[in-house]
Amino acid sequence: MGGTDHETPKSWDAIVVGAGFAGLAAAETLSAAGRSVLLLEARERVGGRVKPATIAGRAIDLGGMWMGPTQTRLKKRAENFQLQAYPQYIRGKTITHLLGRTAKAEGDIEYALFNIAERLDLARVARKIERLAKTLPLDAPWQARDAHALDAITLESWLQKNAYAEKTRALMREITKSLFCADTSQLSMLFFLFYTKSGGGLDVMTSMGPGGAQNFLFDGGVHQLAIKMSEAMDAKLLLNAPVTAIRYEETGVYVEARSSEWRAKQVILAVPPPLAAKIRFSPALPSIKAGLFRRQVMGSVIKFWVAYPEPFWREDGLDGMIFSDSEPASAIFDASPPDGALGLLSGFFDSSPATNLWSPKGQDGRRQAMIKTLTRFFGDKAQEPLDYLDNDWTRELWSEGGYSAYMPPGVLSHYGAALREPVGPIHWAGTETATEWTGYIDGALQSGDRAAEEILAL
Amino acid sequence: MGGTDHETPKSWDAIVVGAGFAGLAAAETLSAAGRSVLLLEARERVGGRVKPATIAGRAIDLGGMWMGPTQTRLKKRAENFQLQAYPQYIRGKTITHLLGRTAKAEGDIEYALFNIAERLDLARVARKIERLAKTLPLDAPWQARDAHALDAITLESWLQKNAYAEKTRALMREITKSLFCADTSQLSMLFFLFYTKSGGGLDVMTSMGPGGAQNFLFDGGVHQLAIKMSEAMDAKLLLNAPVTAIRYEETGVYVEARSSEWRAKQVILAVPPPLAAKIRFSPALPSIKAGLFRRQVMGSVIKFWVAYPEPFWREDGLDGMIFSDSEPASAIFDASPPDGALGLLSGFFDSSPATNLWSPKGQDGRRQAMIKTLTRFFGDKAQEPLDYLDNDWTRELWSEGGYSAYMPPGVLSHYGAALREPVGPIHWAGTETATEWTGYIDGALQSGDRAAEEILAL
Repeated sequence: MGGTDHETPKSWDAIVVGAGFAGLAAAETLSAAGRSVLLLEARERVGGRVKPATIAGRAIDLGGMWMGPTQTRLKKRAENFQLQAYPQYIRGKTITHLLGRTAKAEGDIEYALFNIAERLDLARVARKIERLAKTLPLDAPWQARDAHALDAITLESWLQKNAYAEKTRALMREITKSLFCADTSQLSMLFFLFYTKSGGGLDVMTSMGPGGAQNFLFDGGVHQLAIKMSEAMDAKLLLNAPVTAIRYEETGVYVEARSSEWRAKQVILAVPPPLAAKIRFSPALPSIKAGLFRRQVMGSVIKFWVAYPEPFWREDGLDGMIFSDSEPASAIFDASPPDGALGLLSGFFDSSPATNLWSPKGQDGRRQAMIKTLTRFFGDKAQEPLDYLDNDWTRELWSEGGYSAYMPPGVLSHYGAALREPVGPIHWAGTETATEWTGYIDGALQSGDRAAEEILAL
Repeated sequence: MGGTDHETPKSWDAIVVGAGFAGLAAAETLSAAGRSVLLLEARERVGGRVKPATIAGRAIDLGGMWMGPTQTRLKKRAENFQLQAYPQYIRGKTITHLLGRTAKAEGDIEYALFNIAERLDLARVARKIERLAKTLPLDAPWQARDAHALDAITLESWLQKNAYAEKTRALMREITKSLFCADTSQLSMLFFLFYTKSGGGLDVMTSMGPGGAQNFLFDGGVHQLAIKMSEAMDAKLLLNAPVTAIRYEETGVYVEARSSEWRAKQVILAVPPPLAAKIRFSPALPSIKAGLFRRQVMGSVIKFWVAYPEPFWREDGLDGMIFSDSEPASAIFDASPPDGALGLLSGFFDSSPATNLWSPKGQDGRRQAMIKTLTRFFGDKAQEPLDYLDNDWTRELWSEGGYSAYMPPGVLSHYGAALREPVGPIHWAGTETATEWTGYIDGALQSGDRAAEEILAL
């Protein structure tokens, strides 16, 4: 870790709260510009919603892990630190299961399970979504012409009105669960449009292939980047230091953690919204900002990994992907290491079944259910894994869910203006404040850089 | 305060967290049954969202204040403690302002501003709401036949589909703001039906006259009841004791406040959902319960009072009520004392304008705007009040809003089952857990009694 060779100043130029990728980027950018930075992290590790583990001797990510080619900030930083990216395995057939029917086919889901009329319906719905998204300024979706109308309805309402085929609706519900870890019934249509537009649209977001958000994996895991960033930067990092209070007055801003208080000129808060809401601010946050935090809801997700001696599904002509609307197999992917010396599958229990059905079962119950499902789809070879591991993000004290916060109706239009607006010396980072790739690692990096630049421009 | 004449036991039969009406009822019921009870309250006062103040020398309520005749629990307790209820003043014409038109008329709003077609539309919408509400079991609305469908849409979506007249929709939006301190765009239709059914339906909830929820006021304020209950009960009350952690194991449940720890056999948590979400539980709450707390949102409200030497509007044939869809005069009422020796108006800044527009203006800015509005509607006599006072509930540390928590779409159907389900020795009270008059004082009392009875039945 850097920052130990210069004297600890009595007052920092900036304190960054949260050492996920947003906080790391902010601290890196500020300290690279010569500012003295204290980085406070509640956990005993950096990375936030990116979390390392090992399975069958291999380093894996229990949180975020993919990179898409348009995620330029992540790409650049990964290159800076010589992380090795390798393409997501996509050869062979994908298994899809929708409305009681299963198909094994190459290419897009709809070509296996959709008839001509349904394909046209799906294409029409996709075009409509694109056209609506065009009306949104990414830096101020609340100013879109129809912002209030789009924010007054759920995505589910919109689908019921605009998707004619039940299969289109079923597919959109599953895609929504995979992207947001929330239901179509829970999302504001305006928020859905903003979020998907910020990542380049639904096609990019759902794709595992070239151009897609899930195009690349990192050998050894993307968590290495968080560790390397924290080690290389000239900022003082303090772990196990959950911030409980932030107070600002004319003499500076005072940040309380571990019953101590640190002083700085500026603060960047880079923690998930529900955790920011638990910090005691004085003076109290403006009601619009507090109101926003109280209305942003973390998605519900449990990420799992299963290890096999080899990626046996590949020999059967399968790409290892399962996309299904029946529990527990929402979305499963081949995440084997590039040398193929081990077969790794990873996927998600997501949305309300994650909290209500799978979280109470514990890791053993989930392992049993998932092995059964994998056996059903991949055959008996799936029955004897080397290992199973999962991470229940709904129970992570310092995340309270994942991948990111969603907005129910009536939030983005009324409270969106408070997303990035500084409050006195307090600046706001976190992937939820990003205008590109919000909800993703890349968005976290953008938000941290942007918050740091706010301070550098003062 | 009672409870001082018996020895403080080392372990309490029950600890009740929160001395609003829910916690007071729970503590009263338990201690009346001979149980030893410790009642912990974060504030320096009892009453929670019922809060005393004085204006022009008169005791008033800055929070909840009314009683309806079907609020039997409040009625019974008010009688027990000899509180004097008096009827809400309703003689004369009400001022209504909707879609740019103002009317002064007696009786229901629609008779002044609605034409025949609009009246029929409104009646049809009201009947439809009633019919839908009939399908909901109040103790388990998530089990209603169409629970998921009704929970997948906002109230605004439903209105757009089911109300043909723009005036019907405008009126419903204003009524919703007044009842929920939230917008039609923010509420789940299922939650709206549950909430209004729990209070006997929209007619009862909106009425200031006989049978209505706003039928009676209390001379000297309903906050007296909270104080009297706390004084009469045989339970130990500790103020300024915000609970930070609750831990349970085989030896009992341990409640942390003021850096001390108290032990009990059972705990009743009677605080608003977002504040319950901030307590650290070990073991962690089941994800469905934590997920519920994270999704319940407090309404946004600032309650104000204006005092005049006399209720001058009465002489002008007005009942003092203003119901308007233009800011800042959402809903204003005559709340003068029964002797009429002072003219008091009270009302609300509510929903998102409360947080975004009125909260930042501060009390002075709000006073100016409100006096201007009152002058516009009541004439020049309104220009020189004796006093003005308001309470910004969005900034109350231990409430975080009011009157109560609402649910966005996709919450009640997925998470409702966790509303009252005990977690180990922890029982849940608070008006949000009530099946009758949820969101009201009466619901708070019901919830406290019910939680106490859960413990007494063990």
